[in-house]
Amino acid sequence: MHGKIALEEAWAIPDSFTHYDPSTLAPPGVIGGSGGLHAALLDVSGTRLAQMDANGIDLMVLSHTSPGAQGVADPSAAAALARRANDALADAVLQAPPGRFAAFVALSMHDPGEAAEELRRCWKKKAFVGCLLNDFQSVRDAEGNEQMLFFDAPRYDVFWRVAEELGCPVYLHPRAATPLVREQEWAGRPWLEFSALGYANRVSVHVLGIVCAGVLDRFPGLKIVIGHMGEHIPYDLYRIDHKLNRARFPDMPMRKDRLVRDYFGTQLFITTSGHFSTPALLCAMQEIGSHSIMFSIDYPYESIPNGCVWFDEYVPISSRDLVDIGRNNALKVLPRLTEEPHGLKEKGPRDCGVGGLGLRKGYEREVEHGLYNRDWSERTARR
Amino acid sequence: MHGKIALEEAWAIPDSFTHYDPSTLAPPGVIGGSGGLHAALLDVSGTRLAQMDANGIDLMVLSHTSPGAQGVADPSAAAALARRANDALADAVLQAPPGRFAAFVALSMHDPGEAAEELRRCWKKKAFVGCLLNDFQSVRDAEGNEQMLFFDAPRYDVFWRVAEELGCPVYLHPRAATPLVREQEWAGRPWLEFSALGYANRVSVHVLGIVCAGVLDRFPGLKIVIGHMGEHIPYDLYRIDHKLNRARFPDMPMRKDRLVRDYFGTQLFITTSGHFSTPALLCAMQEIGSHSIMFSIDYPYESIPNGCVWFDEYVPISSRDLVDIGRNNALKVLPRLTEEPHGLKEKGPRDCGVGGLGLRKGYEREVEHGLYNRDWSERTARR
Amino acid sequence: MHGKIALEEAWAIPDSFTHYDPSTLAPPGVIGGSGGLHAALLDVSGTRLAQMDANGIDLMVLSHTSPGAQGVADPSAAAALARRANDALADAVLQAPPGRFAAFVALSMHDPGEAAEELRRCWKKKAFVGCLLNDFQSVRDAEGNEQMLFFDAPRYDVFWRVAEELGCPVYLHPRAATPLVREQEWAGRPWLEFSALGYANRVSVHVLGIVCAGVLDRFPGLKIVIGHMGEHIPYDLYRIDHKLNRARFPDMPMRKDRLVRDYFGTQLFITTSGHFSTPALLCAMQEIGSHSIMFSIDYPYESIPNGCVWFDEYVPISSRDLVDIGRNNALKVLPRLTEEPHGLKEKGPRDCGVGGLGLRKGYEREVEHGLYNRDWSERTARR
Amino acid sequence: MHGKIALEEAWAIPDSFTHYDPSTLAPPGVIGGSGGLHAALLDVSGTRLAQMDANGIDLMVLSHTSPGAQGVADPSAAAALARRANDALADAVLQAPPGRFAAFVALSMHDPGEAAEELRRCWKKKAFVGCLLNDFQSVRDAEGNEQMLFFDAPRYDVFWRVAEELGCPVYLHPRAATPLVREQEWAGRPWLEFSALGYANRVSVHVLGIVCAGVLDRFPGLKIVIGHMGEHIPYDLYRIDHKLNRARFPDMPMRKDRLVRDYFGTQLFITTSGHFSTPALLCAMQEIGSHSIMFSIDYPYESIPNGCVWFDEYVPISSRDLVDIGRNNALKVLPRLTEEPHGLKEKGPRDCGVGGLGLRKGYEREVEHGLYNRDWSERTARR
Repeated sequence: MHGKIALEEAWAIPDSFTHYDPSTLAPPGVIGGSGGLHAALLDVSGTRLAQMDANGIDLMVLSHTSPGAQGVADPSAAAALARRANDALADAVLQAPPGRFAAFVALSMHDPGEAAEELRRCWKKKAFVGCLLNDFQSVRDAEGNEQMLFFDAPRYDVFWRVAEELGCPVYLHPRAATPLVREQEWAGRPWLEFSALGYANRVSVHVLGIVCAGVLDRFPGLKIVIGHMGEHIPYDLYRIDHKLNRARFPDMPMRKDRLVRDYFGTQLFITTSGHFSTPALLCAMQEIGSHSIMFSIDYPYESIPNGCVWFDEYVPISSRDLVDIGRNNALKVLPRLTEEPHGLKEKGPRDCGVGGLGLRKGYEREVEHGLYNRDWSERTARR
Repeated sequence: MHGKIALEEAWAIPDSFTHYDPSTLAPPGVIGGSGGLHAALLDVSGTRLAQMDANGIDLMVLSHTSPGAQGVADPSAAAALARRANDALADAVLQAPPGRFAAFVALSMHDPGEAAEELRRCWKKKAFVGCLLNDFQSVRDAEGNEQMLFFDAPRYDVFWRVAEELGCPVYLHPRAATPLVREQEWAGRPWLEFSALGYANRVSVHVLGIVCAGVLDRFPGLKIVIGHMGEHIPYDLYRIDHKLNRARFPDMPMRKDRLVRDYFGTQLFITTSGHFSTPALLCAMQEIGSHSIMFSIDYPYESIPNGCVWFDEYVPISSRDLVDIGRNNALKVLPRLTEEPHGLKEKGPRDCGVGGLGLRKGYEREVEHGLYNRDWSERTARR
Repeated sequence: MHGKIALEEAWAIPDSFTHYDPSTLAPPGVIGGSGGLHAALLDVSGTRLAQMDANGIDLMVLSHTSPGAQGVADPSAAAALARRANDALADAVLQAPPGRFAAFVALSMHDPGEAAEELRRCWKKKAFVGCLLNDFQSVRDAEGNEQMLFFDAPRYDVFWRVAEELGCPVYLHPRAATPLVREQEWAGRPWLEFSALGYANRVSVHVLGIVCAGVLDRFPGLKIVIGHMGEHIPYDLYRIDHKLNRARFPDMPMRKDRLVRDYFGTQLFITTSGHFSTPALLCAMQEIGSHSIMFSIDYPYESIPNGCVWFDEYVPISSRDLVDIGRNNALKVLPRLTEEPHGLKEKGPRDCGVGGLGLRKGYEREVEHGLYNRDWSERTARR
Repeated sequence: MHGKIALEEAWAIPDSFTHYDPSTLAPPGVIGGSGGLHAALLDVSGTRLAQMDANGIDLMVLSHTSPGAQGVADPSAAAALARRANDALADAVLQAPPGRFAAFVALSMHDPGEAAEELRRCWKKKAFVGCLLNDFQSVRDAEGNEQMLFFDAPRYDVFWRVAEELGCPVYLHPRAATPLVREQEWAGRPWLEFSALGYANRVSVHVLGIVCAGVLDRFPGLKIVIGHMGEHIPYDLYRIDHKLNRARFPDMPMRKDRLVRDYFGTQLFITTSGHFSTPALLCAMQEIGSHSIMFSIDYPYESIPNGCVWFDEYVPISSRDLVDIGRNNALKVLPRLTEEPHGLKEKGPRDCGVGGLGLRKGYEREVEHGLYNRDWSERTARR
């Protein structure tokens, strides 16, 4: 499919690595080892753009790689890192070929009011189409231990209010746990603590915490996006909604007449980042509908071709659902993508080379052979 | 779900029964036996409306029961029957409570030009929102044998052109076979010849005949609707598109760069009438997408509660897909439903009592108990 | 997946082509044009076996290509053709590498008693593991017109009884229509008359005719197999069972306490031949269960690699369902495959290279890289 | 469906409540409030059996309600509680009507060797068909804080070895978190900490910890069962297997040539307890296959009718998959159920009243009306 938009795509500035070395998150060898990962994060218009071209991605929304400012326990250092990243990111988007990149604002979340101010400052730059928070904010307690700030606490309402006012969608992205939590929960099984399980476990607590705290009710224009096919929430929606009843939890702030399920498609959205699984996608489509789902990769922690080959060729869904998930839904969730300087428009299946015959490069003359080429050695229409 | 629209709903005038007794199509006992079926067909605002109210149906599009004018081999008798039905139907819609009924034009298809003229005449009446043809037109040959006219023949282009020009969608509905075909194909197995199998076999030939003949290409604004979950076409789309390749059939008129699959959702649509099957619906949603599917019942040959209970409670799809299939898609495919005197509007899940808690009559005070009521004896949210 | 068994695989003797030229059924160009198709049908251990090896097929059950003896209207010529084909086929299986081929008996069905006798004669040869009938038997009426004999007529009970007695499963395969039917139903749309639609329409009438006639009730040990993902029956099972009620058809011979659905998995089975569609397979698995489904290709009318790549890589089902559908179910439905000289055994996923890592040729050393190879350019575990 | 077996069904002795009051886990009002929950846990042959009869459950496997001995931080008190529960449970099973109840052994897991000995002692009693552990074992550290013992630590191999040797399947069931974890992770969002999310988060870490630690490789005869549709693991299998690659975690003990996916169906199994979700079940069937799934309820924390109505009527799967999930798979995973005094046997769909017509009580005479009764007001065949 041509014309795809990808939302959970990491990028970095050299300063990022002084705070955290993300190459510990990738196996040696992949993307050329740790040097390769750093280079891939710093790159915009090189390998990244070439792979986008080769795999039908129109536009990537770049974001400061996890944990970013959320990993900096010192408030002013966190704010400074976020500002530097934002300014560099806005520049990077402007310097890249037009219509190919947009950006999510990075924020220090130590102080909700300051976060809101930085969001206002950045929102004036049209490069930005939303913001991305890496799960919780690290902070030091009186004993110097790293503790976690979660954004479902009431004091963060000042931030959510401004995000709603600006019409700025918020992507809630995973990050690694604090040393205390790692010791408490993951000791002896470090393999599970990151993307295999810990990320989804923690982000699902956080985003459901926000929903149950009534944030989406108080700010009904607010939109929140989570990745990795919904951090396993869609699979569990029955159980979540059944067990969150107010007869049991009368003090839970979320509207009593709502189910968590009800927020999907209007205030909650998911992406496919890093979970290129057909059964999971089909389950999510049954539970929350195709209109709640957007394509993403999680580059460079995932491979662009792996994500795109799966989505373009292996996903057994209708052409329109494919094009909506692959592109059009992003324009509704992130409406700034339709404005200048991005100026993206909705497309139909045929515009994206989906459905139909003779649309694929190299197969224009095989149009009379149906789904396969002349000698049946190649599929010429999408599977 | 409140607010449903149902499209394939039969109705009759007393004259209809002089040509054909539809009670032969229903088992004795159901709907009070044959007297009951006739009464149910003649009724608009009685039992029918009461059942619509009880089962959340906002509006039914009524159509002259099969085979109607298609079953009348004499051209002038067929045209007269269609005209009488149309005038009576327009009156019936106007006399019924406003916003509860609309109608499909009935047509004799002996002469495509006359059919187009009758369509033009009726289209001035706002009660009509489309037309419905009962498969093929019966006609007598020189020996007096009943033969079949199919509307994929080139001479019917004059009719399709007017349907496109008026923006009038065409519903292709099944009918019983001619005596010759019955003898040829169904002798010894009369049980299969009607709705169990024969209907779908014949309508699928007819509608695919129309598609392959290039009718949808010559009239790209034309929309055709078929019932019964697509007359088994969605299940076979891979095989249909694979086997219809032009290397094998170079003379097939359909655009070479199109697959049959490509027409769904823009020019081809299906309804759920008489096939209340979850696996079939899920398969159709995967193949042609929820935007190509509309709810219908096939009353009084099917039971309103059976169809509605299945759709409202048993279908495991997202709230938005439910509301789109149950209502909103019909407003896009039959846009006249949004105009006066019908004036229907799109609705969201909450407007339709879908999703959320406390929305169901009698359960307003059970809102704090989640999916079930206080003692877990009743489900209060849709399954 | 290694170890697959394929059941609907065509083969011919030179005599076959004097009665019918099957190359009219394939587009020129595919399989090297019509010469290529004939050669492919005559071949056993050449290209066919090489492609089986390259695509993980352990064993093919060969059958005389459609319409075979069913297409020969002269009874003695039909019987002679069937006998010649059977003797040649048994020889071909014995001369081929052991354990790679088995065969279905071909039969003239003009006379059920003679068909039963030929089945007895052949069943003594261990090469045969079932029989295959190409839909209806052509026969000439008094005026010399080609008419159709269907095997749901009571006089065929003598045949079904012997098939049950021998434990010989019967594959019901499509064939082209007679000239009369072609003219009646398909005139003006020859593209639909064959594999795109007509085949499934006719075989579904025939097999449901057999079921409704009570054949499976009178012979409860009898097993019938149909191809092409069930000739669209699984998609329609709700409607079929709903509309075949005995209140409407009190004389229908099938047991009153049974649904058509009930016969699947014990007496009715389907294969994937020529319908490599994921949504259709998922629908069939929901409706009739994986235990009712067997892999097949329909070689040489379909491509071995197309069928195998789809099944091995694109089908999103569990490893065990894959291995059961791809192999083990065939050993239960055709138990002779487990006897000498075939001697096939059930296999687990790992035996078949399904699931697990390092199982794929060329990827043994990439075992530590999970689903993908070192540089993520290749998937090393099944999708 | 008659003949169901349910595996995750809680039971208690009065002593249980001195350690933990499970009524805090249920909303007031449900099951008659807290008195009702205690009574329901103590009951075997009263309300419980009456509801089993009314809902087609042949046999329940009873287990000591969570957290049981796992919640007792004092080792000797924990062991004493487990022993008392086991003796009482064995007695309760023997005193109940034969063939209606079996039991899981409860164990203190402070000392793996002692746990193994208690397992050996109980395994001599034929009432027991497996054992059930409530997630982690509470233990006090030097400062008196409650800490968690997880059974993926190497020292537990002595326990797993005996479980394998005895052929005793182990059910890993959730429990509430320790105060420290509650404070760390759940402060401000108590609603999420239990069955809505926390249970699945913690059990998924634990069971995947066991798998990744190589326990299933060292004890290839060991079988582990988890509830709640797999504690969201089936939905995430692609991501889990992709992210657990050994290039990244070379020291992870699990076999390098295995995926987590590979253990399902042979060593890992799931039940439907407390997650009566059709999309989740369909997703699990696609990912791990119907042979890996067993029916359960989680009584009295869930309602028997709710679970059974969902399973019997709403799940759109084939009759055989239903009967396998509802009954037969449990006989394979817990083979003692087939031995005396339980003596359960595999059943087919018809034995269980699934499929077919006239099988439902009260509808014997409606057999000729197909899926519905005479006036279409009731469905007489399973949906």
